Amino acid sequence: MSHNTGNDKKPTLLIALGGNALIQKGQEGSIAQQFENLRISIRQIASLISDYRIIITHGNGPQVGNLMLQQESCDTVPKLPLEILVAQTQGQIGYMIESVLDESLMEQGADFNPLVSLITYVVVDEKDSAFTNPTKPIGPFFTAIKAEKLDYPTIETPKGFRRVVASPKPVTIIEKREIERLIESGFIVICCGGGGIPVVRNGRAFNGVDAVIDKDLVSALLATEIGADLLVIATDVEGVLTDFNTPDERLISQMRLDEARDFLSSNKSGKGSMGPKVEAALKFVQSGGKRAVITSIEAICDGVQRTAGTQIINE
Amino acid sequence: MSHNTGNDKKPTLLIALGGNALIQKGQEGSIAQQFENLRISIRQIASLISDYRIIITHGNGPQVGNLMLQQESCDTVPKLPLEILVAQTQGQIGYMIESVLDESLMEQGADFNPLVSLITYVVVDEKDSAFTNPTKPIGPFFTAIKAEKLDYPTIETPKGFRRVVASPKPVTIIEKREIERLIESGFIVICCGGGGIPVVRNGRAFNGVDAVIDKDLVSALLATEIGADLLVIATDVEGVLTDFNTPDERLISQMRLDEARDFLSSNKSGKGSMGPKVEAALKFVQSGGKRAVITSIEAICDGVQRTAGTQIINE
Repeated sequence: MSHNTGNDKKPTLLIALGGNALIQKGQEGSIAQQFENLRISIRQIASLISDYRIIITHGNGPQVGNLMLQQESCDTVPKLPLEILVAQTQGQIGYMIESVLDESLMEQGADFNPLVSLITYVVVDEKDSAFTNPTKPIGPFFTAIKAEKLDYPTIETPKGFRRVVASPKPVTIIEKREIERLIESGFIVICCGGGGIPVVRNGRAFNGVDAVIDKDLVSALLATEIGADLLVIATDVEGVLTDFNTPDERLISQMRLDEARDFLSSNKSGKGSMGPKVEAALKFVQSGGKRAVITSIEAICDGVQRTAGTQIINE
Repeated sequence: MSHNTGNDKKPTLLIALGGNALIQKGQEGSIAQQFENLRISIRQIASLISDYRIIITHGNGPQVGNLMLQQESCDTVPKLPLEILVAQTQGQIGYMIESVLDESLMEQGADFNPLVSLITYVVVDEKDSAFTNPTKPIGPFFTAIKAEKLDYPTIETPKGFRRVVASPKPVTIIEKREIERLIESGFIVICCGGGGIPVVRNGRAFNGVDAVIDKDLVSALLATEIGADLLVIATDVEGVLTDFNTPDERLISQMRLDEARDFLSSNKSGKGSMGPKVEAALKFVQSGGKRAVITSIEAICDGVQRTAGTQIINE
C-alpha cells in the first residue's frame, strides 16, 4: 500500500461529530430531521476532501437511547445487550452519514471518492475502574417501582431513575490497521460510531461488554493510532468558553498544552461536557498530533482554517 | 491499486449466508445462540482464506422483524422507516460476523487479514412493478383490528395479519467500486446485509424506500459487478431437491444453465424458498460467473470442493 499518489501528501483530518449533527436541541429527532441536520456538517466536510484525507466519527446517544426504550416496551422478543444496540446505531448513523456525504460530493461535482462506513469495535480493559462504579446514565427514565425490577444498576435523576453503565477508557481500536490502509489508499472512512462497540479480550477472542465509550476519547485514540494530523471535535457550542454562564463568558481561541492541562485540573469546565473534549484534544496533541480544534457543527471549515473554535496546539 | 501481490491470483468467492447461519429452526434467537450458530459457517469460511479472496453477505429476516415488533410496541419514540431498520441490522449482524471471523482466524493462527464490515446500499427502480403490488410479508403478526389501523398494507396469513412490502429487483450496489478495490487489496469484506439498504435515485441523490431486496439476488448481482469467480448460497437444506417431500426426494448435484432454467419455469421449486436461490445462481453464471453452489450452512467447504450441494455450471 506504499505506492505514491497525490493523495499521499494530503494531511489526515479526523472529524468527530457530536450528537447535535443529527438531532438539535428541542427536536423530536425524526429521521427526516436527522438527514436535514446532517447536511450542515457534511457539506462542509465534502468541501475539505480536496485538501485532506478524511475520517468521520460520530456519537449515538439519542439513537441508542431510543433502541433501549423500544426494547423495554416489548416483552415478546429477546432483549439485546448494549453492545449490539451500539452496533445497530453504527449501521443506522453510518448509513445516514455516508448517503448524505455521497450526495454532497455529487452536488460538488467531485470525482469518484471511495467512501466506506465501517463497523468498529474497541477494546476496553475489564479491570478499568469504571466497571466497579458505573456512572454514565443512558436510555429511558423509569419510575422507582420499575427501576427496582430492572436487571442492571440505576441512578435517581430529577426526571426519574435511569440505567447507568460503565464508561471505560478505550485501549485500542480493533480495525485501526484496516482504517490506516484505507486512508492511505484514498478512502474516506466513517467509523467508531457511538464510541465504538465495547469489547474485552478473552484469550484470543473478544467479548462484547455492557459499557459505552466516550466518542471523543475514541476519536483522539484513533487519530493517534493511525497518525492523523488534525483532530476536529464538532459540538453544540463555539468552542471552549471561559467564565461560562457569566457576563464575562468568552471563547478561548487557543490553548497550549499546559493551558489545556490547567483547564482540566481547575473547575473551569463547569458542568458541561467540555471536560472530555478538552481531555481528548490534549491526549491527541501530546501524543504527537499537530493540532486539535473544538468547534461548532456550523463552523467546521472555519475551525480547520483557525478562524473559529478553540485551537489546542503543541507548544 | 494494480500492484501485484500473491493475493491477486486467488479466485474471488462470494458466500451468501442464509438466516439459519444466525438463528436455527425452533430457536428463540438470543444473541448468545446467534454467536454460537455463526461459528459453524464462519470457521469454514476462515479455512478458505488461504485459497480465496472472500466476500460475505447475509440475511436479516428475524432481526429486522424483531426491530419492527419493538417499535410497534413503543409509542414514545419516532418510528423509523424500514430502510433504517435494515441499516441497523447491517450494524448488528456485520459486527457479529466480523467478530466471529476475527476469532476463527486467530484460532487458526492466520497472519493479519484485513477485514471490514461495510454499510451497503442498493439501488432499486422506483418503477419496478413490485412497488405496485407489494407481496413480501415481514415483521410481526397483527390482529384484524390492529391491522386496520396501520399505515401500510397488510395481508392475512394463517397466523394473523402481516405487513407486506415490495421486493424490487436490485439494480446496482452503490459501494461496488469500493468493494472491488478492497478485494483487490486483500481485504475480506462483509457487506450487503439483509439484501442491502434499498434506495431509489432522486436526481443526484438517493432516497431510502420501504422495501426489502432478496439477499441472494443482491449477492448474485454483487458477484457479477465485481467479477467474482464463485458464488456460494448457504442455506438450511443440502441443495436443490427434486421430487421435494415425496419418497423420491433427492439432491440434484449439478445443474447446467438450461436445467436451471427448466427448474425455474416448472413447478419443481415447490413452495420453498429455493426459487430465488436458483434464479440468483442462474443469473450469476449466465452473466459470466464460473460456478454457483447452493449448499447447507454445514457444508460450505464441501460445496466449494464440489462434494456437496447443487453445482450450477456454465455448460
